[in-house]
Amino acid sequence: MSKQVSLLTFLLLLGAISTQRLFAQQNAAVTDDDAQFIRRIHDVALTEGRCYPWLHHLTKKIGARLAGSAQAAAAVEYTHQMLDSLGLDSAWMQPCTVPHWVRGDKEVVRIAQSEMGSVELRALALGNSVGTGEAGLSAEVVEVMGLNELEKLGAARLKGKIVFFNRPFDATKMNTFEAYGGAVDQRGSGASEAAKYGAVAVLVRSMASNLNDDPHTGGLGYRDGIPKIPACAITTNNAELLSGLLKKGPVKVYMRTTCQTLGDKPSFNVIGEIRGSEHPNEIIVVGGHLDSWDVGEGAHDDGTGCVQSMDVLQLFKRLNYRPKRTIRCVLFMNEENGLRGGTAYADEAQRKDERHLAAIESDRGGFAPRGFTVDGESAGFVDKLRAMQNWSPLLEPYYLHIKKGGGGADISPLKKQGVLLIGYEPDSQRYFDFHHTEVDVFEAVNKRELELGTAAMTSLVFLLDKYGLP
Amino acid sequence: MSKQVSLLTFLLLLGAISTQRLFAQQNAAVTDDDAQFIRRIHDVALTEGRCYPWLHHLTKKIGARLAGSAQAAAAVEYTHQMLDSLGLDSAWMQPCTVPHWVRGDKEVVRIAQSEMGSVELRALALGNSVGTGEAGLSAEVVEVMGLNELEKLGAARLKGKIVFFNRPFDATKMNTFEAYGGAVDQRGSGASEAAKYGAVAVLVRSMASNLNDDPHTGGLGYRDGIPKIPACAITTNNAELLSGLLKKGPVKVYMRTTCQTLGDKPSFNVIGEIRGSEHPNEIIVVGGHLDSWDVGEGAHDDGTGCVQSMDVLQLFKRLNYRPKRTIRCVLFMNEENGLRGGTAYADEAQRKDERHLAAIESDRGGFAPRGFTVDGESAGFVDKLRAMQNWSPLLEPYYLHIKKGGGGADISPLKKQGVLLIGYEPDSQRYFDFHHTEVDVFEAVNKRELELGTAAMTSLVFLLDKYGLP
Repeated sequence: MSKQVSLLTFLLLLGAISTQRLFAQQNAAVTDDDAQFIRRIHDVALTEGRCYPWLHHLTKKIGARLAGSAQAAAAVEYTHQMLDSLGLDSAWMQPCTVPHWVRGDKEVVRIAQSEMGSVELRALALGNSVGTGEAGLSAEVVEVMGLNELEKLGAARLKGKIVFFNRPFDATKMNTFEAYGGAVDQRGSGASEAAKYGAVAVLVRSMASNLNDDPHTGGLGYRDGIPKIPACAITTNNAELLSGLLKKGPVKVYMRTTCQTLGDKPSFNVIGEIRGSEHPNEIIVVGGHLDSWDVGEGAHDDGTGCVQSMDVLQLFKRLNYRPKRTIRCVLFMNEENGLRGGTAYADEAQRKDERHLAAIESDRGGFAPRGFTVDGESAGFVDKLRAMQNWSPLLEPYYLHIKKGGGGADISPLKKQGVLLIGYEPDSQRYFDFHHTEVDVFEAVNKRELELGTAAMTSLVFLLDKYGLP
Repeated sequence: MSKQVSLLTFLLLLGAISTQRLFAQQNAAVTDDDAQFIRRIHDVALTEGRCYPWLHHLTKKIGARLAGSAQAAAAVEYTHQMLDSLGLDSAWMQPCTVPHWVRGDKEVVRIAQSEMGSVELRALALGNSVGTGEAGLSAEVVEVMGLNELEKLGAARLKGKIVFFNRPFDATKMNTFEAYGGAVDQRGSGASEAAKYGAVAVLVRSMASNLNDDPHTGGLGYRDGIPKIPACAITTNNAELLSGLLKKGPVKVYMRTTCQTLGDKPSFNVIGEIRGSEHPNEIIVVGGHLDSWDVGEGAHDDGTGCVQSMDVLQLFKRLNYRPKRTIRCVLFMNEENGLRGGTAYADEAQRKDERHLAAIESDRGGFAPRGFTVDGESAGFVDKLRAMQNWSPLLEPYYLHIKKGGGGADISPLKKQGVLLIGYEPDSQRYFDFHHTEVDVFEAVNKRELELGTAAMTSLVFLLDKYGLP
């Protein structure tokens, strides 16, 4: 009994000590100074942030910024000039070579024969798609709900047809990016998968959360050795209409697109940095992508991520914060149809043997903050995640959690260098109302929501800079 | 030493036991069944909810619904009919008498003399305001940043003048309702406070989070025994302009409004309920207010709260959930300029000696969920809050926290009956872009955000019904 009590005492003491250690660890970083500085960051972001006027210029004065376009070049010049004006330690343009796809004439997609007769559909050619040729093409439509249905139908049913991929988003997902992930294979791989069975073209239901009249473009990838066939997205409302008509009888569609891929072009990532005072060789990246699709104004995708990343540096300058580590804002080129900027950045980092502590990407829209997701496959992930979660008491007043999850496309090439990848996570509910459409414009962005994202990113960079990672 | 160890053992054991009890308490309610049912609620809300089409009718077919207006009467009929069609145990209209204020002609507010010459301002008369009379009035403008400046200026400076209240929202507040709370005294009390010193009219900077071109109306209250003077809100952009001109020299403004208060009118709250199978006399209310201001379509304020509350009952019917307690949806009339519906409801509850377990109001817009706030002044508040917070593991996957905070205006008259008051809390960042303006329309509401609010409210009602409160 006595021994048991002693053992119990020992275990309980041990428990008490570990609990205390845990609390000590948890609170190590949680000083009043930190809380006050993060409050200051938010105050200044909400009153003296520059992300909103920068976004206005990027969207309203420049507009859509597809890689290789004149607007993309203008965006490079403009953002470089803005970074150059902030009194940073340096701002520069990092060369990369980008593909150059052009949409050509306004798409024509028309139901040519059906129960309802002829109906024009609202459509956008998918990025990287080949065109139909000047004359266009007509064919009967076969609806499928996913790539897995193609094999069963086979060439017997698909040869000479237009395959219509119509699987909608799963509305029950809390995070719309999960719903997107569950549908986007149709857009990305549908054309080549259908072409394997002799299909002549592809229509894809737009990657949208709701029923509406905005077609969503976005990239496709052709597989080597399979004929390239043209592909268009149609609106979710039009997809419902077409599906309804197909239930009543055969439907023939006429499609005409003149998009084409021209030769590669030179372009740039835009970079600015504040050099670290103690560990200048440890780099913290914060970034978004400067290019967009060629419709709308590329506001939420990803003008917001760019101007937030620029504003992180602006806020540090305004707050007279001298970082220990090097804070670098990177505006990546060509995320949408090639990832050449992200690849070029990682390649140069490798070549120069640069050491990145972490990279944060904002590429999920400029909506109200929910927190950050940390890539679970990075080296030493568990310890790093735990260290970051110890900062939660400082971040929760600003609606910021730290969870396991994705980083971002542009920073993903850094993964093999062991860099911790972090994604800024705003609320996702509205993103796929705007993504890759004509309505992704400045007016769709709320000033406060945008600024709170800047403040969130600045706060996390501050903590990463001050405390590092295990 | 032995005694010390014993004591320590005892304390640690006690600690361990309390910790265990705490966990047991915390997890008492957290069964797999509950988690599955709350997942089902969300699935059905996001796929078979009816709140969005109901909101479309309320906003697009009926429109703005000021108490006493034909549209308010139409909204009573429509929502009663909808509730009546759901197969509830009962649906009825509860009489109340409402004030009847009318806006009259389009307001004219014009800078008549200034450095810039004459400039039209975008303005809306404040609700309950008297008019200027047919001829309008002209007077010099005196700018103040708050009620507290009036006494110092006194009649010497204010007599015969138009007082311009120009204190903006504090942009650094994370919750915009706090910023609103810090500015709205100017709108609510400015007219009477200025009239005390002989002012002839009042202009108020719109209660808006950002600079824009939409004037925000909203109620004012006149104090007895003080002359009633007319009051208008001008846009935040116009407020900046006017303030700038005043820095350069005297400014004279011409104002013309023909608003007036007519005689009271009969109206109704609309109520539907599912009777409890075990405790029919314990009532859980879920509600919003059916009236709105007379501009825009009353979408976020508070069409969304009404259709969400109706949809709570629809979801329970669809899920074949038979509640233990009585679940009652109440659509209150006249929140905006009299609270007569809320008062009538509480009076009848008192008269009939009804027992309300809790009342939940949704009146902060149809935005993405953040959680619920629980009124800290209710009887037995601390125990009830703790009991509700024990449900957090069930609610957090849906972005729902439970915090101390406000309930809602319509349910506030129930407070003296000891009812626990709960406010549904969506994200607040965009609310004061729309509140009381022409742009508070159906298109400003996102379907998923609206439906997630319904699901949140249904989930909390389910837990309140199943477990009750201490």
